[in-house]
Amino acid sequence: MHRLRKPYLLFLGDVQDKLTAKTAFGLKDWCPNDVVGEWSLPGCGVSLGVARMSPQEAAARGAGSIIVGIAPTGGALPPHWIAELTAAAEAGLDVVSGLHTRLTSFPELVQAASRRNVRLIDVRHGERTYGAASGRKRGGKRVLTVGTDCALGKKYTALALAKNLNSRGVAASFRATGQTGIMISGEGIAIDAVIADFIAGAAEQLSPDNAADHWDVIEGQGSLFHPAYAGVTLGLLHGSQPDAIILCHDPSRRTIDEYPNFPIPDLQVAIDDYLRAGRLTNPAIRCVGLSINSSSLSHAEYAEYFRRVTDKLGMPVCDPVRNGVDVLATALLATAR
Amino acid sequence: MHRLRKPYLLFLGDVQDKLTAKTAFGLKDWCPNDVVGEWSLPGCGVSLGVARMSPQEAAARGAGSIIVGIAPTGGALPPHWIAELTAAAEAGLDVVSGLHTRLTSFPELVQAASRRNVRLIDVRHGERTYGAASGRKRGGKRVLTVGTDCALGKKYTALALAKNLNSRGVAASFRATGQTGIMISGEGIAIDAVIADFIAGAAEQLSPDNAADHWDVIEGQGSLFHPAYAGVTLGLLHGSQPDAIILCHDPSRRTIDEYPNFPIPDLQVAIDDYLRAGRLTNPAIRCVGLSINSSSLSHAEYAEYFRRVTDKLGMPVCDPVRNGVDVLATALLATAR
Repeated sequence: MHRLRKPYLLFLGDVQDKLTAKTAFGLKDWCPNDVVGEWSLPGCGVSLGVARMSPQEAAARGAGSIIVGIAPTGGALPPHWIAELTAAAEAGLDVVSGLHTRLTSFPELVQAASRRNVRLIDVRHGERTYGAASGRKRGGKRVLTVGTDCALGKKYTALALAKNLNSRGVAASFRATGQTGIMISGEGIAIDAVIADFIAGAAEQLSPDNAADHWDVIEGQGSLFHPAYAGVTLGLLHGSQPDAIILCHDPSRRTIDEYPNFPIPDLQVAIDDYLRAGRLTNPAIRCVGLSINSSSLSHAEYAEYFRRVTDKLGMPVCDPVRNGVDVLATALLATAR
Repeated sequence: MHRLRKPYLLFLGDVQDKLTAKTAFGLKDWCPNDVVGEWSLPGCGVSLGVARMSPQEAAARGAGSIIVGIAPTGGALPPHWIAELTAAAEAGLDVVSGLHTRLTSFPELVQAASRRNVRLIDVRHGERTYGAASGRKRGGKRVLTVGTDCALGKKYTALALAKNLNSRGVAASFRATGQTGIMISGEGIAIDAVIADFIAGAAEQLSPDNAADHWDVIEGQGSLFHPAYAGVTLGLLHGSQPDAIILCHDPSRRTIDEYPNFPIPDLQVAIDDYLRAGRLTNPAIRCVGLSINSSSLSHAEYAEYFRRVTDKLGMPVCDPVRNGVDVLATALLATAR
């Protein structure tokens, strides 16, 4: 389990566009109280609009980590950023990256971290071996976001749902399974980086025993309908033992992203398949609603789509960005009674 | 992909019983022409009945590797075996182990291997990162053994089927996904040791493009009904894109081994679930028969069980140990026409 030291200084390197810096923007949006400021190299074309400060200033204000909040094409860490990250380590900050390139592959950074006794944390990479799943039922309630495909709102929906539940006074924890989620929550397991035999075991560890009325809101990964990643999705589903799932979907997709020969399934088929698979470890699993990423639709198109899907499936439907997840939270709490 | 150097010298350490040495016995049974001899420590209570020779003698007769053919409880390599394995490395043999303890954790062994330029191969451990699955259809035919549980004959069935097909003059390759299978075939991928994101990708690489009439007979792993390992099973199924599956089952099991709260599914349900999952990457997938591990049944009990299952499922049924896999091979070749 990765556990990060908050608050954060967000590092933007010298990127030129917001999309490449989306991790940093996500952190600013989802955990603004954990962000002390931003830092960048000369020539950087992006700002988060928060206080600009050097690693030394951030450390003086109590920052625990500098976060590389950047996802460049290819996932490589530009070598000319290393001097600044080394300075951050020397200032006493943990250095946290979600890129493919391992921080530990830069000797000067390793030496600085060792000298100052700070950590270099690659959240994309697994940090240890987990055990095999036990299948044992744990205390507390769990909801998992699942999807018809990758990258259509499973993390966003889980974050919004956990926040909504907390705002109602319900004890709820977001459980991160991917790098950005881990940075936001400060802890979690990059489930797709775990050794295959231990996917479900890692998922069990991610949402441990809890109070009977506590909800773990678990960030889903992949899709049961994805030819490359369904194994991860199934292991996460089995280890999470969710009492409830929320199906995330993007109506503009006809086929799995980057896999044009693999159609997106019918929504009712997708729900049935997730429930059938999930019953193995929780026979009481149910689907409480749909989370629609309708960014491709006009207001009128979404209204029509919303009516059609609600009629067809007979369960709560929302777009978290358009109108929040209130209906999902209400449905979730209703099923728990 | 692990690729081992044959032929083998089989090392038995100082074990006292055949069960602990079952890997070595499996190698002697399945690839006798690849075994030059056996070697053991003083006090060893087991013999394979093949020529006894030291690593030096084995190397002189052309051996490529010494195989630790032992599976002690806990999977640890006894430290007092290391001197003999070091001597084998010094004699010019690759050292191959399927145990949890990594060979590379013994400095004297690492030094000897480096000095003689031989390899230390831990077949239980993944040796590299594979890519994500492409989902692309490959040339050639594939059959995958699947199971209602772990450890009930998937490897044995696949080995017997590949041998049967070869004996008919059909081009067929056994594709190993576990440590013993890899030692027998001399190559393969320990699929449960792969990083979660790449299970299906590794399975694609294991059975690459081939001639249209060539069969890959792929060793299955785990079970879709196993609370810990179903993710591995699903990824292997998706990446293998099998044209045919054979369901392996042990009628004496009522629950998943070591998971008493998880029932073994009904056979028709198991077949339907495997086919439903497999259709994602091969819509033409079909089940060609059942392989029954009936070691717990008397002859009369098996005859009755055989009649009942054949009547109920309407497909070929066999116990490979009792009466071979001829009916499965025949059914497989019939479906391919």
